[in-house]
Amino acid sequence: MEVEVKFRVDFNSIREKIESLGATFIREEMQEDVYLSVPLPELLRVRKISNLNRSFLTYKRIADPGRNEEFDEIEVEVSDFEKTLQILKRLGFKEDVWVRKRRLVYRLGDVTFELNDVEGLGAFLDIEVIADDVEEAKRKIWEVAKRIGLSKDDVEPRLYQELIRSAGRV
Amino acid sequence: MEVEVKFRVDFNSIREKIESLGATFIREEMQEDVYLSVPLPELLRVRKISNLNRSFLTYKRIADPGRNEEFDEIEVEVSDFEKTLQILKRLGFKEDVWVRKRRLVYRLGDVTFELNDVEGLGAFLDIEVIADDVEEAKRKIWEVAKRIGLSKDDVEPRLYQELIRSAGRV
Repeated sequence: MEVEVKFRVDFNSIREKIESLGATFIREEMQEDVYLSVPLPELLRVRKISNLNRSFLTYKRIADPGRNEEFDEIEVEVSDFEKTLQILKRLGFKEDVWVRKRRLVYRLGDVTFELNDVEGLGAFLDIEVIADDVEEAKRKIWEVAKRIGLSKDDVEPRLYQELIRSAGRV
Repeated sequence: MEVEVKFRVDFNSIREKIESLGATFIREEMQEDVYLSVPLPELLRVRKISNLNRSFLTYKRIADPGRNEEFDEIEVEVSDFEKTLQILKRLGFKEDVWVRKRRLVYRLGDVTFELNDVEGLGAFLDIEVIADDVEEAKRKIWEVAKRIGLSKDDVEPRLYQELIRSAGRV
């Protein structure tokens, strides 16, 4: 199970705090995601990481819909973003929402920090732990979240594609 | 467009003939294909080439259903066969037919020979040309087919998954 909590943050100040925790910088990713039209709680995404020239096909099932912190995920790397998208469209899936972001990835033990600057939405930090024990994973996430000054008030439960859709409606 | 004609052959004697044409041996593949339940004329396949440790996701649309010689194909390499199959099954596709074969690939100019020993079905030779001009492609295919002693009578128009299904009914 992928367990993650998303926080609204200030990009630069939270980056400093993550670094001062001693987290290791892993990589920077320029991500272009397209979500296909499958009904919640399922998600189907094709991601292009343009700076690394890699693409991924990802299926997720949200285990706690609405809260959106627990995901059953299956992911494969694919050799071609456009062709993968074409195959899915031929199979009847429609392009739903595009999400474009710059992501910095840090790691501290088994906790992964994904600091995102999302086009049109601003900055978010996903703190993630892969674990079978969800409660233990959340305990770890909140322990580090508190150490970098984040609280329940900073949590953003909505999915990126939901936020993009609401932003589009303004 | 992928244009290909499938012939029923004797594996060893046709192999000698292909080699005596001067075709270049490209590679041997141990293929395990699973076709998912999409209605004809569309095909959806996940292929594992076990000896090369590579896997592919392929969508095909048969442009000449029944005759099955002209295919509009979109293919990507995927990092994991099982996970790709899992994603498709989560999306509602069912496993339809498995096809297992040993394939020898030869090339002569822009003609590709795929000599297959298919589990439970016997030997088949697919002669393939990738081209926009279907008639020109067929002309090239038949030119080499005749040179190795194949005729209209040797053509097998049915798809491998159709042959497997009929074999299962015996």
